[in-house]
Amino acid sequence: MPEQDGRIEGFLDLDLDRSRRRGAPEAVLCDAKSVEQVAAIAAEYARLHAAGREDLGPVLFTRADRERAAAVLAALPEASHDVGARLLAWPAQPPAPSGGLVIVACAGTSDLPAAREAELTARYLGRPTRLIADIGIAGLHRLQSRLPELREAACVVVAAGMDGALPTVVAGQISAPVVALPTSVGYGVASGGVTAALTMLSACAPGIGVVNIDNGYGAGHLAAQIARWAPTPG
Amino acid sequence: MPEQDGRIEGFLDLDLDRSRRRGAPEAVLCDAKSVEQVAAIAAEYARLHAAGREDLGPVLFTRADRERAAAVLAALPEASHDVGARLLAWPAQPPAPSGGLVIVACAGTSDLPAAREAELTARYLGRPTRLIADIGIAGLHRLQSRLPELREAACVVVAAGMDGALPTVVAGQISAPVVALPTSVGYGVASGGVTAALTMLSACAPGIGVVNIDNGYGAGHLAAQIARWAPTPG
Amino acid sequence: MPEQDGRIEGFLDLDLDRSRRRGAPEAVLCDAKSVEQVAAIAAEYARLHAAGREDLGPVLFTRADRERAAAVLAALPEASHDVGARLLAWPAQPPAPSGGLVIVACAGTSDLPAAREAELTARYLGRPTRLIADIGIAGLHRLQSRLPELREAACVVVAAGMDGALPTVVAGQISAPVVALPTSVGYGVASGGVTAALTMLSACAPGIGVVNIDNGYGAGHLAAQIARWAPTPG
Amino acid sequence: MPEQDGRIEGFLDLDLDRSRRRGAPEAVLCDAKSVEQVAAIAAEYARLHAAGREDLGPVLFTRADRERAAAVLAALPEASHDVGARLLAWPAQPPAPSGGLVIVACAGTSDLPAAREAELTARYLGRPTRLIADIGIAGLHRLQSRLPELREAACVVVAAGMDGALPTVVAGQISAPVVALPTSVGYGVASGGVTAALTMLSACAPGIGVVNIDNGYGAGHLAAQIARWAPTPG
Amino acid sequence: MPEQDGRIEGFLDLDLDRSRRRGAPEAVLCDAKSVEQVAAIAAEYARLHAAGREDLGPVLFTRADRERAAAVLAALPEASHDVGARLLAWPAQPPAPSGGLVIVACAGTSDLPAAREAELTARYLGRPTRLIADIGIAGLHRLQSRLPELREAACVVVAAGMDGALPTVVAGQISAPVVALPTSVGYGVASGGVTAALTMLSACAPGIGVVNIDNGYGAGHLAAQIARWAPTPG
Amino acid sequence: MPEQDGRIEGFLDLDLDRSRRRGAPEAVLCDAKSVEQVAAIAAEYARLHAAGREDLGPVLFTRADRERAAAVLAALPEASHDVGARLLAWPAQPPAPSGGLVIVACAGTSDLPAAREAELTARYLGRPTRLIADIGIAGLHRLQSRLPELREAACVVVAAGMDGALPTVVAGQISAPVVALPTSVGYGVASGGVTAALTMLSACAPGIGVVNIDNGYGAGHLAAQIARWAPTPG
Amino acid sequence: MPEQDGRIEGFLDLDLDRSRRRGAPEAVLCDAKSVEQVAAIAAEYARLHAAGREDLGPVLFTRADRERAAAVLAALPEASHDVGARLLAWPAQPPAPSGGLVIVACAGTSDLPAAREAELTARYLGRPTRLIADIGIAGLHRLQSRLPELREAACVVVAAGMDGALPTVVAGQISAPVVALPTSVGYGVASGGVTAALTMLSACAPGIGVVNIDNGYGAGHLAAQIARWAPTPG
Amino acid sequence: MPEQDGRIEGFLDLDLDRSRRRGAPEAVLCDAKSVEQVAAIAAEYARLHAAGREDLGPVLFTRADRERAAAVLAALPEASHDVGARLLAWPAQPPAPSGGLVIVACAGTSDLPAAREAELTARYLGRPTRLIADIGIAGLHRLQSRLPELREAACVVVAAGMDGALPTVVAGQISAPVVALPTSVGYGVASGGVTAALTMLSACAPGIGVVNIDNGYGAGHLAAQIARWAPTPG
Repeated sequence: MPEQDGRIEGFLDLDLDRSRRRGAPEAVLCDAKSVEQVAAIAAEYARLHAAGREDLGPVLFTRADRERAAAVLAALPEASHDVGARLLAWPAQPPAPSGGLVIVACAGTSDLPAAREAELTARYLGRPTRLIADIGIAGLHRLQSRLPELREAACVVVAAGMDGALPTVVAGQISAPVVALPTSVGYGVASGGVTAALTMLSACAPGIGVVNIDNGYGAGHLAAQIARWAPTPG
Repeated sequence: MPEQDGRIEGFLDLDLDRSRRRGAPEAVLCDAKSVEQVAAIAAEYARLHAAGREDLGPVLFTRADRERAAAVLAALPEASHDVGARLLAWPAQPPAPSGGLVIVACAGTSDLPAAREAELTARYLGRPTRLIADIGIAGLHRLQSRLPELREAACVVVAAGMDGALPTVVAGQISAPVVALPTSVGYGVASGGVTAALTMLSACAPGIGVVNIDNGYGAGHLAAQIARWAPTPG
Repeated sequence: MPEQDGRIEGFLDLDLDRSRRRGAPEAVLCDAKSVEQVAAIAAEYARLHAAGREDLGPVLFTRADRERAAAVLAALPEASHDVGARLLAWPAQPPAPSGGLVIVACAGTSDLPAAREAELTARYLGRPTRLIADIGIAGLHRLQSRLPELREAACVVVAAGMDGALPTVVAGQISAPVVALPTSVGYGVASGGVTAALTMLSACAPGIGVVNIDNGYGAGHLAAQIARWAPTPG
Repeated sequence: MPEQDGRIEGFLDLDLDRSRRRGAPEAVLCDAKSVEQVAAIAAEYARLHAAGREDLGPVLFTRADRERAAAVLAALPEASHDVGARLLAWPAQPPAPSGGLVIVACAGTSDLPAAREAELTARYLGRPTRLIADIGIAGLHRLQSRLPELREAACVVVAAGMDGALPTVVAGQISAPVVALPTSVGYGVASGGVTAALTMLSACAPGIGVVNIDNGYGAGHLAAQIARWAPTPG
Repeated sequence: MPEQDGRIEGFLDLDLDRSRRRGAPEAVLCDAKSVEQVAAIAAEYARLHAAGREDLGPVLFTRADRERAAAVLAALPEASHDVGARLLAWPAQPPAPSGGLVIVACAGTSDLPAAREAELTARYLGRPTRLIADIGIAGLHRLQSRLPELREAACVVVAAGMDGALPTVVAGQISAPVVALPTSVGYGVASGGVTAALTMLSACAPGIGVVNIDNGYGAGHLAAQIARWAPTPG
Repeated sequence: MPEQDGRIEGFLDLDLDRSRRRGAPEAVLCDAKSVEQVAAIAAEYARLHAAGREDLGPVLFTRADRERAAAVLAALPEASHDVGARLLAWPAQPPAPSGGLVIVACAGTSDLPAAREAELTARYLGRPTRLIADIGIAGLHRLQSRLPELREAACVVVAAGMDGALPTVVAGQISAPVVALPTSVGYGVASGGVTAALTMLSACAPGIGVVNIDNGYGAGHLAAQIARWAPTPG
Repeated sequence: MPEQDGRIEGFLDLDLDRSRRRGAPEAVLCDAKSVEQVAAIAAEYARLHAAGREDLGPVLFTRADRERAAAVLAALPEASHDVGARLLAWPAQPPAPSGGLVIVACAGTSDLPAAREAELTARYLGRPTRLIADIGIAGLHRLQSRLPELREAACVVVAAGMDGALPTVVAGQISAPVVALPTSVGYGVASGGVTAALTMLSACAPGIGVVNIDNGYGAGHLAAQIARWAPTPG
Repeated sequence: MPEQDGRIEGFLDLDLDRSRRRGAPEAVLCDAKSVEQVAAIAAEYARLHAAGREDLGPVLFTRADRERAAAVLAALPEASHDVGARLLAWPAQPPAPSGGLVIVACAGTSDLPAAREAELTARYLGRPTRLIADIGIAGLHRLQSRLPELREAACVVVAAGMDGALPTVVAGQISAPVVALPTSVGYGVASGGVTAALTMLSACAPGIGVVNIDNGYGAGHLAAQIARWAPTPG
């Protein structure tokens, strides 16, 4: 048993204060942890919940493969699980939406996992969200037909791999901030997503903030913060 | 004389529509242009103004050394000029502040030029702004004594060179979004600012959007967009 | 005196056969040569001309600063000199235009030196040419208003620095091949042009061939070859 | 059922306009997509075809491993499949050849998959094609014995890994444009193909356009565009 | 049989003199060796021990996966084995602790394998040790609550992946030297640990020495040397 | 006048607490600061001293060119100045030496500026020091003749550029910890010092902690901390 | 059947002239070829041999895993096969040794595969050879005890991974040329062998020529050429 | 006065034993040393010579700009000075040539400084030498016309910048070893010479040893060692 809530000496020390301090609870990045470690963390949340703590908010388990997801669900069976986004949320019900609309747009179907992780994160942090897929700049008419929608958003997350040029084009057409989410989709000099990240940092349109490659969680978190004060649509 | 407003065939084509489309007018990046090119652009703005166009908003001339600044001032003598930030604004008067507070914090005195460029940009885009200097993480008490202030902001721009670790620490303590501005301050493996940029993209705290190295203009622009809907302080 | 035409033992060996073999004469890259070396090469061309050789075609001296340009002009006073493009051509008169139209488009005014070098090279290799400036993707309407023109070209050279995204957008809208010319315009992670080159190689639209950073000569040469068989406009 | 042809909301938005706009239909890059995504795309093409659309041209599915190829063939059983090139074409019959000859040459037998992808792409875009294998520069006589053939081409694609030097040598001997196709063949500092790509961009012979590493599709597409206006051989 | 102790011609030559020369015996890095090679080395140590050599001190076998660990244990059954740290020690009993306290602190639970390797190494080199886990800077209060402990150490090893910022923050708060241990924990631009290593080299607080990524052995070895002369706690 | 000691709002905030917290006062890195900024910092120290503060310890001004050194000396005329090390110390008198001997060894005469900066820093932090020059590994006998001396040290700083191999060789011969100081001495792939830094991080001998390239101050600071508890020689 | 010896159209074109031109026959790099391609090449050599060609010399098949080795042995059953070096030679009998001694030295047991490939290559090219293992610079006495042997060689190949410093130390002690062979042995910043390659290129001792990482074949080939004219030992 | 020949404590320690040990005396790399340091080294050689030492052989001062060359000549007025190669030799007279012929070939006139440094070094180490200039592979006939000469050499140094492909082509045509000397000639992705170095390491022809970029001294030294045993031409 932990000596204090969330701390197991020599192993882990959960940041249970984060909700109060930052307005959003800690997330658990699963892929660099062993299955045993993920299971122990989920068990500690279950223990805290059973002990009556009510400030644990929606905890997200990100980048969870099937094995790690199973470990979470074993301890927290009421969690939701989106396989494509590799994301679990506990408890499963997102908060009622408030603040401005977050739109997540992606260049190709291959960018969907990161885009979906971003959308779900923003939703679990309390924003209304929408996903627009496959509007890469090789065929501009697809983007142009979605511009009226994109202009409704308080923040747009744009996910792209390969040349990573979509965020610049989107940012140049709207007044809301853009969160640029490079993905590891690509091959050759684009493999791993570094070229996309460099392109986004070098964007010749202002109004773009870049997150790490494939960091859909970070993109959705930032977008939710940005859209917090904007008027709720509809 | 241009064939249409802002276009000189084979030379330039100003984006005069940007204010309407994006809520902020075009800025002129001076350091990659020849003095003659900067002078011609400033002259075109002067011509448009003389011809009665009233939608030219505050135009910013960024990264201007003394020679290019002189070229701007020759054509637009009523522009303001901040030498440290290498920035000129025309007309000189910023809009009345609206929206949330933008704070620009920097790790060391060497980061001041980029930080000041960010602050002025946000101010010319209409936000109330404040600058907090020299709160690098080698001595945490300096940051901690400023936390109450930082928590008043609707958006915090954090400029840092060397290890670029300050944005992570700040983001971990507040609920507002952080715009991370890597600077080229540093030497050895930190020279040019690439290490700072990588650190910021890799931040283990969420809520951070990164801009290009030394891109104070882009950081201030993004912060102004982010803070737009937040309540005005005081 | 050379032992054979164009060869000075232990110093240089001109490729006088290139016109016959490749359809375009050798060019002299000046910036990595000493002023004395440039002068000696120009003198050898003058000597060959005085000796009656008539197959020397238009020789281009590229990337020539003022000092090297003066050395060329001292030996070949009838050469033309474009200071912005840092290019000299001898003799000064380009061939009568034949083949398809080569358009050189550039993203910003800062890209003009490389763009102009490309245009002049294509013209001295015998193609009709046109230059379209400042149509960067931060304001797409500028590009869109030029699409009818761009669709007349048999080959379009697209020069861009910073994020280097323009060639993808152009290639996605036309049926002619695009030669992508990254420029060293930019700062931070875009400095030196490597990001632009990576973006262009990673372009998600097909139909793009990339040349070295700032290699306006190579871009214009390739475009002239590509447009060779296409119908001459007008 | 899609709300409009080729669009499935939140998932994909096919560029069905590309044939009209660019003269060649969209291709589907398979390796970054899940098997389910590839199957859904193939199914949408089958649906459109069954619904009577006749402008779908030869659609290429590139970089398809066995599993993804099976998914395509399940939906489009009349497609052709080249296992070595990892390419499927639907319908299977290429257009009647027109325009100039496209030759694809490669340095070693290891470069054959990329080379074959390039050749098939050019053929499905309507050009006569030929493949010349294993003429690397470690034994120049092999290249020299093929020069008469290479000089018949309107465009030569040159695929090479390791040092990537073959395109320079070929371009120096012919008057047609060269499309340089770096391959990921190599080890040590050559692994992944980046060295080959850098060498090709740095080629000291002009007349070379470089595509991404292993991008046989892009190389063949560009070559087909380049050879379009040239006289058809024989 | 070896021609001299520890040497098998054409295969290996153990540094049996290291204990005398450096105060700590040789360690065997297992992961770049074949299972057969590891087995042969362990067998040679067993042979030397059986032959009566008494100066072999605690030999460490590092970075040993299960297969290599089994090979060691087959030859040296009395060795200890820590699976998480991938470390075996022979003989199993560490020396009686002397010198100052070595604390190993890590940013996240994912850094535990490297941290544990560092701690065990320092312990087998004779120092008292302690492990503090999961005090990353995204939630500073966790670090701050451990400062009194950290200030007891004669040397602190700080392991961190991702942004690698923890060593700077720790070093800024204590007077003992810090050994910075970057880990390969991370993804995107942080994958492989290079960003963490660069951050640590660029630290704006002095008093930090950096070791290779995931080099827990080297970090523990250096810390044990540093703490050698300090007073033993308690 | 500052609102509190060491703080000038919007400009600087000196870490006057560092001596108490870390045992060594703040140093001022001059080369990224303007001359005016350096002058203002020196003036603030002078003001604090005049106001009677006695805990300012020996302040070091590092990486100071002649212009910045003059600015320091104008405000603090009693400072010492070592031109080769680009270092100023105020007050000029180092503390009486205590703790173990710090030896700074360098591979070539070109490494002397960084080596001398390291030596002076350790001396101003209170250690006895010695400098051994020009013992690069191309001629091992030079190193070997100095081994008895090197074995007297409680810590050895080893400065090297080019291949950066000297620290490994030294560490392999002694029992004290080695601080590896890569220098920017070198050309070609060694230019800037990155190769030396990589070599040092990859050292196959344990017992080495690496600092940033040319960071003589950091190396000397760390060495002084390491040698603190060791017996004073003689 | 090939149209000419060694050429299969569209697939391969063996360099059968190499023995005459270079004094050593072609080698077949297996790892980038499919098993079918390796089998076809071996079959072509078998066919040429059966057809009576006698100038095929010892052909080496390098970097062959078990599957590719089996394909070679199926067609050329009389070939020799060294599993550790991943090398096959056909015919199995090396030429009688002539020229100077080639010594291959390696830093650690992990470098043995590359070292053994180098040794066998030199032997099959006709030189007397010897292998010295495990003399890394962390314990210099091992190298020093082998210096008399090393000084007998006409050329020394030195294989090393990690910091790659051994070739410099060896070259500084002998008068024969050194071929530096970086290996991919290492982890962290040393992984893949790039650091070792950089160190070797930056060596501060002259007399070193570097080959690609893990290129034991190239190292042995070069050493055999270098030692060709030297007196045969003994 | 030095305490022992060649050693000035805390400053330098000449490797006077090198001639005996390696067959060639130490060289002094001037560009990383201050003018004062170069002067002191030259003075020490003058002092040793005046004191009667006769084993100082031809000392080379490399990479010396005009200022450093003047410092050498002031102390050693009888030295020779080649301005283009930035090399001084003392005494001025090279040894009588012995061993095989060293040919230095370069791709372009811009590579002449490095090529000439290599040639002079080989000559001062006692080999007969010849220089062949400007035979880059963009026009192969130039190389082919020089093949008979190149085949006379016992070792060929090949200097090239840009794509660095010449050494591969040369090595593929001759039986002697090739020393590949990358030069920093180039721009864009070729600037600084890294691309040339990578190409040379990746050469698909065996028989090539690579030295550092612009390291003409190292190339000439290695070539002289290689050619030592070969028959002297003529």
